[in-house]
Amino acid sequence: MVILPAARPKTARSERFQARRESIIDLAAELFARNGYASTGVADLGEYVGLERGPLYYYIGSKEQLLADIHDRVMTPLLRDSEAIYALSGSPLARLRLLSQSLLEQVIGRRDHVWVFLHEYRALTGSRRTRFRQERETFEGYIRALIAQAVKEGVLRSTDTELAVLSFLGMHNYTYQWTATKPGITPNRLSRYYCGVFFTGLAAAAIDLRAIEKEASRLRTQLSR
Amino acid sequence: MVILPAARPKTARSERFQARRESIIDLAAELFARNGYASTGVADLGEYVGLERGPLYYYIGSKEQLLADIHDRVMTPLLRDSEAIYALSGSPLARLRLLSQSLLEQVIGRRDHVWVFLHEYRALTGSRRTRFRQERETFEGYIRALIAQAVKEGVLRSTDTELAVLSFLGMHNYTYQWTATKPGITPNRLSRYYCGVFFTGLAAAAIDLRAIEKEASRLRTQLSR
Repeated sequence: MVILPAARPKTARSERFQARRESIIDLAAELFARNGYASTGVADLGEYVGLERGPLYYYIGSKEQLLADIHDRVMTPLLRDSEAIYALSGSPLARLRLLSQSLLEQVIGRRDHVWVFLHEYRALTGSRRTRFRQERETFEGYIRALIAQAVKEGVLRSTDTELAVLSFLGMHNYTYQWTATKPGITPNRLSRYYCGVFFTGLAAAAIDLRAIEKEASRLRTQLSR
Repeated sequence: MVILPAARPKTARSERFQARRESIIDLAAELFARNGYASTGVADLGEYVGLERGPLYYYIGSKEQLLADIHDRVMTPLLRDSEAIYALSGSPLARLRLLSQSLLEQVIGRRDHVWVFLHEYRALTGSRRTRFRQERETFEGYIRALIAQAVKEGVLRSTDTELAVLSFLGMHNYTYQWTATKPGITPNRLSRYYCGVFFTGLAAAAIDLRAIEKEASRLRTQLSR
């Protein structure tokens, strides 16, 4: 019986490919954040990651694709998390609290990526630009829906929902500008602070922030299951 | 809310020079915001403003000086206003409300300048960088002092003042990212909204936002006198 060697699993190869690709994307985010997207050539990137032009293009496709990939490294986990959080059965404020933390995990954990895409998203064209806008809109939609639900339930004041969404996002997103100067700060602590200000600021009546923290902790365990 | 008249230029010639210089700075802000600071050469700028290299350098000094000037076009009126606001005899919250509006007037009215300096300030070197940091610190100092005073007076909750300052600034500054998409929004309305959320969010007890608006209006008339 001739035993055939096991077919090399496709996944192992593509897994390695994927891991290498992601590490290149992360190094590119570092380089673009430091020197600017326009000023950084593919040759600079090749030197930085230690690859010749040919192999580099094999991994990245194109410079614009790389910019889209930098965006995806933040947006893919953020959308995955926020979809799961939104789907939980829980109060809108506890879910907003989890969503806030998920956003801050990206803003703090991937601040080079966030720096690059907040500054350079206008360099995306065609379908990449469309997808970027749609994903951003999807994410903002979760926030808008949860705020609207909290207003409907009488927990938050009836307010200009659009300005509420923009205030919430602004407070969170701007964190990328200063997070490097406060290395000790955690997404959990910052989220608790921002949500404390925001929820109290828009509360219809006195609200119990500790109850929201408690429910958010309980919901979190449902996510990790 | 540019309240105080600018220092009178010494002569008619320097007035003309100054006006031309400012218009070049504003056009440069437009160009840098659109195409990036690093990718825009002095030659591109010359073409855009309609000046040969020699006369252009006569007005701008250098490209880095231009970046510092773009920053000054926002920071000079902002610091002048905020110093005057801070010096008023009024409650800390009413003064914060005026300061918030003054900041939003710059962020909304000079969004190209704000776009450029929030993205490119790291290109400033030496004394220009030092001055930029000092001015930023001076402005943040007014916010910090007013929040601290409100806490001391028992109007705002005792809180992490640094996070309070960062939340306040983040909500305001991030406005530059979306203000172009909401052309109808006024600094006054937006400031009222942000301060409403922020003050209520950090209030030690129920606060009367209408009383704060009233006092802010009264203080405003003292500024323009």
